Amino acid sequence: MLGRMYEGQDCSVARALEVVGDRWTLLILRDLSFGLKRFDEFQQSLGIAPNVLTDRLKRLDQEGLVKRVRYQETPERFEYRQTKKALELQPVIFFLAKWGDRYRPDPLGPPRLSLHDNCGGKVNEKLVCSRCKKDVWFDSIYTEANPTHAKVK
Amino acid sequence: MLGRMYEGQDCSVARALEVVGDRWTLLILRDLSFGLKRFDEFQQSLGIAPNVLTDRLKRLDQEGLVKRVRYQETPERFEYRQTKKALELQPVIFFLAKWGDRYRPDPLGPPRLSLHDNCGGKVNEKLVCSRCKKDVWFDSIYTEANPTHAKVK
Repeated sequence: MLGRMYEGQDCSVARALEVVGDRWTLLILRDLSFGLKRFDEFQQSLGIAPNVLTDRLKRLDQEGLVKRVRYQETPERFEYRQTKKALELQPVIFFLAKWGDRYRPDPLGPPRLSLHDNCGGKVNEKLVCSRCKKDVWFDSIYTEANPTHAKVK
Repeated sequence: MLGRMYEGQDCSVARALEVVGDRWTLLILRDLSFGLKRFDEFQQSLGIAPNVLTDRLKRLDQEGLVKRVRYQETPERFEYRQTKKALELQPVIFFLAKWGDRYRPDPLGPPRLSLHDNCGGKVNEKLVCSRCKKDVWFDSIYTEANPTHAKVK
């Protein structure tokens, strides 16, 4: 969706980046994984220009990463839901977040926690739950704002 | 290294993308993980303009993702080696490749295979070795060009 910039590239990474190798796109996918669904929610979260957001959502729809669903008739309004194709990028977003936590740390700790849906324990970058010590796969991880950040606001 | 584009963003993903949210940067990191080290190797692999490559390598060096090591004195020549900080992005590259393999498939199969260093088996997107059936972590994965692609060239 970003054009074939890598004509000579015989590589799946390059092909994946043609679809999602745009930072706004990855941040929209992140927001979708946090549960955001509506245009104004994305706009508020991202501080993105409306025309850019419209463009990125349209491309995500064309690529089958989001499904546009009408939730109101008058006036007509739509929300965006991520598809399986988008969900399968969760590992990419998870590891980008873990890397950011480590190498661009926030003094208040990670802004968002990755938690194990079974027990609520924190999932570390080795995909192990700190509470129940089990191995955790991405479909069992949810995220939540870190309370240390909420206190400040 | 790409500038603070997300001033309002309280998010580790956004912060990680400030460093590596540039497609060339991710492709250079991919090449490093394939064992490429020299300027002309990257240039040949990526078909990238020399000034852009110089810029990205300089930024990767400044950010501590590569170490510049002199390998020849006259004329002076340097090679680039990835640091631990870069290695910890391997999961991101691995899952981008798996996603590209699935959603932008190549008729000849995946251009590159992720293999288990213990037995040479293929590692699937669930991080399980297809040969020995063991769970595999990223530090036990190496990649190799898929022979199906080599035959054609």
